[in-house]
Amino acid sequence: MQLTGNLLIGQQSVHGSNGSIKAVNASTGAAIEPAFGGATLADLDRACALAWSAFDVYRETAPEARAKFLEAIAQNILDIGDDLIERCMQESGLPRPRLEGERGRTVGQLRMFADVVRNGDYLGVRIDPAQPERKPMPRVDLRLRYIGLGPVAVFGASNFPLAFSVAGGDTASALAAGCPVIVKAHSAHPGTAELVGRAVQKAVKDCGMPEGTFSLLFDSGRDIGQGLVKDNRIKAAGFTGSRGGGTALMKLAAARTEPIPVYAEMSSINPVLLFPNALKNRGEAIGKAFVQSLVLGAGQFCTNPGLVLAVDGPDLDAFIAAASAALKETGAQTMLTPGIHKTYEGAVEKAASHADVTTAARGLEAKSGHQGQSALFVTTADAFRKNHELQEEIFGASSLIVRCPDLASMRELIESLEGQLTAALHIDEADYAEARSFLPALERRTGRILVNGFGTGVEVGHAMVHGGPYPSTADGRSTSVGSLAIDRFLRPVSYQDLPEALLPDAIKNDNPLSLNRRIDGKLQLAS
Amino acid sequence: MQLTGNLLIGQQSVHGSNGSIKAVNASTGAAIEPAFGGATLADLDRACALAWSAFDVYRETAPEARAKFLEAIAQNILDIGDDLIERCMQESGLPRPRLEGERGRTVGQLRMFADVVRNGDYLGVRIDPAQPERKPMPRVDLRLRYIGLGPVAVFGASNFPLAFSVAGGDTASALAAGCPVIVKAHSAHPGTAELVGRAVQKAVKDCGMPEGTFSLLFDSGRDIGQGLVKDNRIKAAGFTGSRGGGTALMKLAAARTEPIPVYAEMSSINPVLLFPNALKNRGEAIGKAFVQSLVLGAGQFCTNPGLVLAVDGPDLDAFIAAASAALKETGAQTMLTPGIHKTYEGAVEKAASHADVTTAARGLEAKSGHQGQSALFVTTADAFRKNHELQEEIFGASSLIVRCPDLASMRELIESLEGQLTAALHIDEADYAEARSFLPALERRTGRILVNGFGTGVEVGHAMVHGGPYPSTADGRSTSVGSLAIDRFLRPVSYQDLPEALLPDAIKNDNPLSLNRRIDGKLQLAS
Repeated sequence: MQLTGNLLIGQQSVHGSNGSIKAVNASTGAAIEPAFGGATLADLDRACALAWSAFDVYRETAPEARAKFLEAIAQNILDIGDDLIERCMQESGLPRPRLEGERGRTVGQLRMFADVVRNGDYLGVRIDPAQPERKPMPRVDLRLRYIGLGPVAVFGASNFPLAFSVAGGDTASALAAGCPVIVKAHSAHPGTAELVGRAVQKAVKDCGMPEGTFSLLFDSGRDIGQGLVKDNRIKAAGFTGSRGGGTALMKLAAARTEPIPVYAEMSSINPVLLFPNALKNRGEAIGKAFVQSLVLGAGQFCTNPGLVLAVDGPDLDAFIAAASAALKETGAQTMLTPGIHKTYEGAVEKAASHADVTTAARGLEAKSGHQGQSALFVTTADAFRKNHELQEEIFGASSLIVRCPDLASMRELIESLEGQLTAALHIDEADYAEARSFLPALERRTGRILVNGFGTGVEVGHAMVHGGPYPSTADGRSTSVGSLAIDRFLRPVSYQDLPEALLPDAIKNDNPLSLNRRIDGKLQLAS
Repeated sequence: MQLTGNLLIGQQSVHGSNGSIKAVNASTGAAIEPAFGGATLADLDRACALAWSAFDVYRETAPEARAKFLEAIAQNILDIGDDLIERCMQESGLPRPRLEGERGRTVGQLRMFADVVRNGDYLGVRIDPAQPERKPMPRVDLRLRYIGLGPVAVFGASNFPLAFSVAGGDTASALAAGCPVIVKAHSAHPGTAELVGRAVQKAVKDCGMPEGTFSLLFDSGRDIGQGLVKDNRIKAAGFTGSRGGGTALMKLAAARTEPIPVYAEMSSINPVLLFPNALKNRGEAIGKAFVQSLVLGAGQFCTNPGLVLAVDGPDLDAFIAAASAALKETGAQTMLTPGIHKTYEGAVEKAASHADVTTAARGLEAKSGHQGQSALFVTTADAFRKNHELQEEIFGASSLIVRCPDLASMRELIESLEGQLTAALHIDEADYAEARSFLPALERRTGRILVNGFGTGVEVGHAMVHGGPYPSTADGRSTSVGSLAIDRFLRPVSYQDLPEALLPDAIKNDNPLSLNRRIDGKLQLAS
């Protein structure tokens, strides 16, 4: 499939004239053809105008039509075939099995949201029927449904070129919610972005959706990304990336005439808590599993286990020894971009030379220029408390083990942590009572608490929370993975005393969409 | 019941030493005893520390215990008896029937949230059971529930001294969500605040809730209100008031190290749309009903009908004539505070002297110093479009009628409006087709659309949305009235592979709380 380097603005495919971007081979650092033209502010304006004019029509599409549209995107992505995987491998440095898995996840997500749309529970229908006889005042008829917020800006993520980029979780959930989407492609994988973008563009056409339902823009600088968040026709933004990038978008959004929500998924070090009995009984096995999680995808996961807390002593020594032995055998892996690799090496260097940090182990040395060598560091609770920079995420396969004098100080350390996506507890039954006392602090600080596992597998389901208090995300009231992610792009509207003829289908008396509804506060399943 | 003028910090009752506040008799402008001591920053810190330490315990109280606590607050408010109504009449200038009604609403809200807590649907339980046999990877066990955000700051509202102040909608929904509350009393009704605050304080004690579940602070300046929103132990704020006040809090919240949501309900002019057939057939009746809604509570409602749009012609002339005749008979009413009265008079004066605005009618003149005289103005669509200041809310019984050349220009005007709490359509069956074409724009701009009525009656139910896009509220994704208001103070947490012994009751296998649950994405009612 020939790449054009073109912007996709509605059904148009046009070459941007505002500078150009070339992808870089993540392994070699060499530029890859073709050049992608950067969007101008006029291109941005056109995409926003199209999205705005599409919104009222798109958000009222019938559930089945919208579900089929999401499924068509999924099928079109599969239909690209191996070209997608190969281009993506070049651009991201990620290996084939990982990208095939990620494609499966992307397609699965789109299909899950198709089911969410068919099911219709996201519409949150509530009906309080009129009570004309109520004293002293008759009660009006009130009906509520959720509608889409409006056009959504989605920023492609470097570390998930498929599952969190052009047709990833943010796009899928926004489209499911009835919101047109404008994607700002990540400059690290413009070819992947174009291929997937064309899959979406074709689905828009084939399914008869309004033209402005989807656009894809390349940005040779920062004007387009910033311009999107500032445009008054954009009503929300989804972002996965660095804390600097996310907080910059949050500030832009808060400074608008009409502030909008930014769902930025930023940074997290995902504490792993080793409890005494588990550490004693299974320390070596946990150490090996920990290293497997740590080096997965070159450690470039938001849920990478970047921090381990445990009570100091021989059992922890054994854990560190086992983890170190395993880590030394791990090969260096090509990182997503030369820039990410450089940042990683700098951060690891800084940690290694920190006065209060010792290096427990390094992985195998890099065989080529852009591979990240894994790293395991050790420090004390006291040093961790005093040096806030030790809490900063190192994006890559690096982790820090903190020797705590006792469980009480370990719990205190938890209270000093920033908001996190996940926390993992390793416990045996004899640890339950102690573990229970940690839960309140963990609930306040994380979006997901897991036992005897690691956060790196993020199941795309209905009960998943991939979110957490600031700064792990911009808005801890939400998740960016799983079916609940649709809630981010919805708002409730109430209809009072509307004649049946004017009511949207979702809240009509005879329930034509067969929705579960809350009648007078009581949930009733569609028969 | 003797007022003390004291701050209520947990179970303590202490006189604040940071300046003092006296209430002012709304009718006479005379100061009323006693003096209320303003809180110091040390008082604020103590209240926050108590709230923070109460949070983990309070949010895990059993549903029945928390429901009984809300009901005890309601009963304690009733038990104050007439002292509450009389003090509140003096402080607010509102008449007895209105305040008795508002007390009923306040008590009803608390009891509704008790039912919401017992019902438990707000916990949003989702369970995706483990699938150990799944290929290629086994599926983990994932369970989700919502928990409270943390301690919430509530700002008392001038225009609802009972229903949106110390134990009003924000407080009731935050307490129901499991969040401790610190109220910053409105300086216009400190006595009412103390009486209600003591009712809450007593319920905390009688129900055995943690001491920091509730505190009440008086603020002689702005330091305490601002300090609350800036304190890192406060995780959300609820506010009802002016746009200036609300946006100032939003900015403070966004500038925190950890930004927090502010639910500010600010300003709205609540457009009323008169469609041709309704106007022709019922113009006079609608005009009379409109004036009744306009002058209710001296027009001091967030949902006051401040704007009327209709097609120009003899039918609109007849409507204006009928409304003017009715308005001329309306008595001036004491406004909430001398300051609000002064602002109202200034805004009405400015409108009356606007070059593009004509005065259709004024109500009866004031009989005393702090009464607002109602006002009805007329302008053209062209003038309204050109003068953005004509969109500004005049808080009080004043409204502006806009003569539109045709329905198309009326629809265009809608698109130029800022976000609104409500929009009311007056239609006969022959207007349905035209009305339908207005709905998309109204849905995008308002939280509640109503037919053949006015927004001033805000039913406290399950399907109510009292919210709307910015600037009607800070966050159009929410409602501050009705049972859905609880969602503002919640966030989801996911639990992966936790042993049954460590799971919260809400997500245990055997469903001890008898909750409706979403199992594998499918809603299942508790049997």
